Amino acid sequence: MSGNTFGHLFRVTSFGESHGAAIGCIVDGVPPNIPLAEPDIQIYLDQRRPGQSRHTTQRREADLVRILSGVFEGKTTGAPIGLIIDNTDARSKDYSDIKNLFRPGHADYTYHRKYGIRDFRGGGRSSARETAMRVAAGAIARKVLGAKVSVRGALIRIGPHVVDRDAWDWNEVARNPFWCPDPGAVPTWENHLDMIRKSGSSTGAIVEIVASGVPVGLGAPTFDRLDADIAKAMISIPAAKGVEIGCGFAAAEMTGPEHNDEMRMRDGRPVFLSNHAGGVLGGISSGQDVVARVAIKPTSSLSSPQRTVTIDGNDAEIVTKGRHDPCIGIRAVPVAEAMMALVLADHLLRHKAQNT
Amino acid sequence: MSGNTFGHLFRVTSFGESHGAAIGCIVDGVPPNIPLAEPDIQIYLDQRRPGQSRHTTQRREADLVRILSGVFEGKTTGAPIGLIIDNTDARSKDYSDIKNLFRPGHADYTYHRKYGIRDFRGGGRSSARETAMRVAAGAIARKVLGAKVSVRGALIRIGPHVVDRDAWDWNEVARNPFWCPDPGAVPTWENHLDMIRKSGSSTGAIVEIVASGVPVGLGAPTFDRLDADIAKAMISIPAAKGVEIGCGFAAAEMTGPEHNDEMRMRDGRPVFLSNHAGGVLGGISSGQDVVARVAIKPTSSLSSPQRTVTIDGNDAEIVTKGRHDPCIGIRAVPVAEAMMALVLADHLLRHKAQNT
Amino acid sequence: MSGNTFGHLFRVTSFGESHGAAIGCIVDGVPPNIPLAEPDIQIYLDQRRPGQSRHTTQRREADLVRILSGVFEGKTTGAPIGLIIDNTDARSKDYSDIKNLFRPGHADYTYHRKYGIRDFRGGGRSSARETAMRVAAGAIARKVLGAKVSVRGALIRIGPHVVDRDAWDWNEVARNPFWCPDPGAVPTWENHLDMIRKSGSSTGAIVEIVASGVPVGLGAPTFDRLDADIAKAMISIPAAKGVEIGCGFAAAEMTGPEHNDEMRMRDGRPVFLSNHAGGVLGGISSGQDVVARVAIKPTSSLSSPQRTVTIDGNDAEIVTKGRHDPCIGIRAVPVAEAMMALVLADHLLRHKAQNT
Amino acid sequence: MSGNTFGHLFRVTSFGESHGAAIGCIVDGVPPNIPLAEPDIQIYLDQRRPGQSRHTTQRREADLVRILSGVFEGKTTGAPIGLIIDNTDARSKDYSDIKNLFRPGHADYTYHRKYGIRDFRGGGRSSARETAMRVAAGAIARKVLGAKVSVRGALIRIGPHVVDRDAWDWNEVARNPFWCPDPGAVPTWENHLDMIRKSGSSTGAIVEIVASGVPVGLGAPTFDRLDADIAKAMISIPAAKGVEIGCGFAAAEMTGPEHNDEMRMRDGRPVFLSNHAGGVLGGISSGQDVVARVAIKPTSSLSSPQRTVTIDGNDAEIVTKGRHDPCIGIRAVPVAEAMMALVLADHLLRHKAQNT
Repeated sequence: MSGNTFGHLFRVTSFGESHGAAIGCIVDGVPPNIPLAEPDIQIYLDQRRPGQSRHTTQRREADLVRILSGVFEGKTTGAPIGLIIDNTDARSKDYSDIKNLFRPGHADYTYHRKYGIRDFRGGGRSSARETAMRVAAGAIARKVLGAKVSVRGALIRIGPHVVDRDAWDWNEVARNPFWCPDPGAVPTWENHLDMIRKSGSSTGAIVEIVASGVPVGLGAPTFDRLDADIAKAMISIPAAKGVEIGCGFAAAEMTGPEHNDEMRMRDGRPVFLSNHAGGVLGGISSGQDVVARVAIKPTSSLSSPQRTVTIDGNDAEIVTKGRHDPCIGIRAVPVAEAMMALVLADHLLRHKAQNT
Repeated sequence: MSGNTFGHLFRVTSFGESHGAAIGCIVDGVPPNIPLAEPDIQIYLDQRRPGQSRHTTQRREADLVRILSGVFEGKTTGAPIGLIIDNTDARSKDYSDIKNLFRPGHADYTYHRKYGIRDFRGGGRSSARETAMRVAAGAIARKVLGAKVSVRGALIRIGPHVVDRDAWDWNEVARNPFWCPDPGAVPTWENHLDMIRKSGSSTGAIVEIVASGVPVGLGAPTFDRLDADIAKAMISIPAAKGVEIGCGFAAAEMTGPEHNDEMRMRDGRPVFLSNHAGGVLGGISSGQDVVARVAIKPTSSLSSPQRTVTIDGNDAEIVTKGRHDPCIGIRAVPVAEAMMALVLADHLLRHKAQNT
Repeated sequence: MSGNTFGHLFRVTSFGESHGAAIGCIVDGVPPNIPLAEPDIQIYLDQRRPGQSRHTTQRREADLVRILSGVFEGKTTGAPIGLIIDNTDARSKDYSDIKNLFRPGHADYTYHRKYGIRDFRGGGRSSARETAMRVAAGAIARKVLGAKVSVRGALIRIGPHVVDRDAWDWNEVARNPFWCPDPGAVPTWENHLDMIRKSGSSTGAIVEIVASGVPVGLGAPTFDRLDADIAKAMISIPAAKGVEIGCGFAAAEMTGPEHNDEMRMRDGRPVFLSNHAGGVLGGISSGQDVVARVAIKPTSSLSSPQRTVTIDGNDAEIVTKGRHDPCIGIRAVPVAEAMMALVLADHLLRHKAQNT
Repeated sequence: MSGNTFGHLFRVTSFGESHGAAIGCIVDGVPPNIPLAEPDIQIYLDQRRPGQSRHTTQRREADLVRILSGVFEGKTTGAPIGLIIDNTDARSKDYSDIKNLFRPGHADYTYHRKYGIRDFRGGGRSSARETAMRVAAGAIARKVLGAKVSVRGALIRIGPHVVDRDAWDWNEVARNPFWCPDPGAVPTWENHLDMIRKSGSSTGAIVEIVASGVPVGLGAPTFDRLDADIAKAMISIPAAKGVEIGCGFAAAEMTGPEHNDEMRMRDGRPVFLSNHAGGVLGGISSGQDVVARVAIKPTSSLSSPQRTVTIDGNDAEIVTKGRHDPCIGIRAVPVAEAMMALVLADHLLRHKAQNT
């Protein structure tokens, strides 16, 4: 199970299973002399934490992060920053019902075939719990980006229900349990999710991430494009099935005159008259908002019965009991924000290396 | 302009500008003793070559690839394979009209801001010409994957016109200049593109890539997921604005019972009853077809006037003359096929390293 | 302070300062289904632990390693293995004497100039304590290499005193506190070190590492040669100032007929008649013992006064009090063994990727 | 045959066999706006070129480098720089005498065992011809380092004959065919090499590289130390068997008071009173000269008979005819200079990324 490092210069390497002793990560490449303390990270972990409303899993974990290294007298030293969260809610329970079969939509089958062994307790390494370390590392990435860069996320669709973009209010996002930017959509989503949960079902969603204040020039022209790295970052989030930049898939239906962002001088500076590109041209940030959207599939664990097979090669049915999110997309928002921050911080350092 | 290497074990590093002396790449990590000759690569380059119908740019290049190293007596030796294509159609023309302004939708502005210098002849490094080396490297990747794995692509949408998936015929793809798998859509697309071209406009499109015969187990669970690397690969294609795996964005509108691929034993082997996941579970290939779709924006170069600014900070208008594709998505198909092959070959080698 | 990852496929990323909360590492890329438990690692850490004789620092740490992830029911799962050692002996002491000046031979000056901040407590990240995680990761690398490969080390020189190679006895190495393979040299070394310690001085040393049972074919021909990666591994050990493979620097004084290892068939198999090459030809293992030697400088901390300067730019004198090794080379032996194991395990996986 | 890329940010990827169509490399990560033309590179290639005296192989190649990309109107653009040298002296000759047996000291046996196939013509990928691209890339690295940094090399030993360091004169280096800095040693070396050549033998040598003007702060504290990367760079040179930094192996015989470089304030600035460390402390450049020495083994190809075996498993004798260097160490000097430049340029960019 290699591939647990993300980034080229600003690098995050993570470890940990859902029900192991702890999860953690090492953040390497952090510039020195940046003020950093545990609350700077905890604030983002708290946003991601489950159990905050009836719409997310009731698993309750304090998820208290500890900084083990790389910070001295309140500032980063340039040394690798070790982060750890002890697993405190890993209840000793009976996994005999899932250890021998493959949950549809989960990684059970592919892990079994690839590794011949899997830590089935709570999903092991494939648990969404792993994403806590992305959020923690993302908090450090934000510090590297500085206060001029903001990375914000919202949920813009739950199942059939979309937000009204004209009603977009970033302040609303923190006021409801769905990261919904449209006050008018909140009651609809609430009802929809209650219905989904009661029926033992689940629903997909779309996350939108907007990074503002990104300086011009981050990225590279060929393979390591800023948008390509964002795409990888987003699809690496558990349950992500699609990503788009700017107009994204809608661009396929547009003409060139519709899609191109024209330019004009304003107050002596060149400005774009629209942002269909989503802030990236030729793989490099243009100074406009960097905009990405991520499609999140419906939660795979269902309390309604599904057909599957056992490790021994028999047909079986599975019903997932216990704590699960009806819409995993909700908790994906802070994770997607973090992934965006990681990509931007990495490319900021890369840019400085070659172009300053 | 770093970031010109793709892949971890099967690695492609490319160079070259549209109007320089040559373009080329180095393919490293190729296993030894694989039969390989120039025609194995040329066949794919010929598919990508422009000027084959009135629907693609009339720039005509032989695009003859030469193998400079790494092959001995008709077989790979394990040494890096140097590939080169001389630029023969780089006409000496007058670029004074574009050297001082930023073409909307192109990388001119961001290159200028990032590097302070740019090779403006024909787009320089940002030219789609660069993708020829992806196709060449992809041909080698296919050899590494072996005959049991097929990677095929088709265009499924041009502007407003989509294919009828029930009419899908892979054989049809080679019979029309659009990579269209639906014979019934061909005349519609033809008319649409003629209209687009005559009006000096351009149109977006969607490419679909299907990899069949992919063994179970390729990929990794966290950051270097197979689908995440596919996403990066696809968005790194010039003009790509979105990518999805399996149901992709449609998953956002689905419920868990609709989306999950259930399993049953068939002839003593476990089979999936659907493939909404697009052949990847938990970042690892499941043995089903790996399916990706890529949204390609409309060609940015237009023969209708657009507003822009000059390097010196003045408002200006630009009209692009000469050879351009009305739908760059057409020529993106073999490139997207190649990128899929590159990702699969890389993960095949990575899988062998850890799991054999 | 980037660069805290070692290896390409078998990868170790470490963190931690001498007097922080803990040190740790993540070992990624480990093949699954390898039996592994904490005692498999602890046995090597115990060898490295200081305070085991009067010839090493009297700092006493239990150095108890915990496996936090990647092992399930006694076997590796392929997931990243998180390792941690809590710092238990980080006494709260007064560092006011060293926080403002640069200890000769140490990294104080270069850290200060590079980062503008440094964790001066016990050397911070530059402390030899960091090497504990190399030893821990090396223990896992040995598991990956399997029982047929042995990696052993010895000290062959302390200051002016060398071992008699004709008296070499691997069993002797564990019987004395110096990793000395020559029983006859032990009393001499003992007296020499007592003299060195009493005079407040320190001494250099040479470590020799021999890897036996290494399969033919590990390595690569150009930059990532097996011996080049060994060289990097060894010089990355704190206080290492030189490394040689096989005859090493002696080869500069030899002729071709003296140095070349001739071959003959023996029992139907090709054998080398000597091993001046040290088991590597053209960057690739030949099947002979891989032999490397590492020069370790004398411990920089001295209890005799040395001239230095302060951060504020004043001349000063420094006398190091407290616990230090008169010959840091002794404790470098298990570290160098571990680095050899890390390189071999990485190249074993790389070899499997391309050549199986 | 992976591992053909060197460097993390300033990256060189090379290809090419001795008797293939061409050798070449791609230099990625070069900052933009650096004046660069082919003569800037050719000057260093000419120094390396064989056939310039009777003391190096009489193979004569023009070795004319062409820049294929990445330079526009005389300046780097930040795009990857493709370099190529056509092979013009690859005479069609009879290799039947060496295709079936393993030349002692060469990579024939290990390539055969690892790859099962090898391009035996002139050594193929293992030919020293590959080093031409290192020299070419090194010329670009020097440009990145700027005029304040000089990287110079000399030969300090040939077989039993060493230079008198008190007679060191950098200007002398260019006046004799041996890169010898000591005028008094030249006649001795000349006689020695004539004797060696006439007897069909060969001799080892030691190269010393000195980089002056290196800014304080390049490097990293743990694995990617500046000296560790130099060690890898040097041992990756064909025939290199040892490398040392500063006092190197002599440090093993020294005491701490002898080895430590003390400091004093001079004219308001801290200075070191000696440079036993070779310009690197804790893996980071100190601002002093960076000094490395490399041991080069005697040329393996001999015109006196040697015992070996055939691919088919028979004992055989081999006598190498034709053009070979009696002391490959001579031509290693510009290669070692280039490798030092590559490491420094890479770490300069890395330093800028994290610390500016």
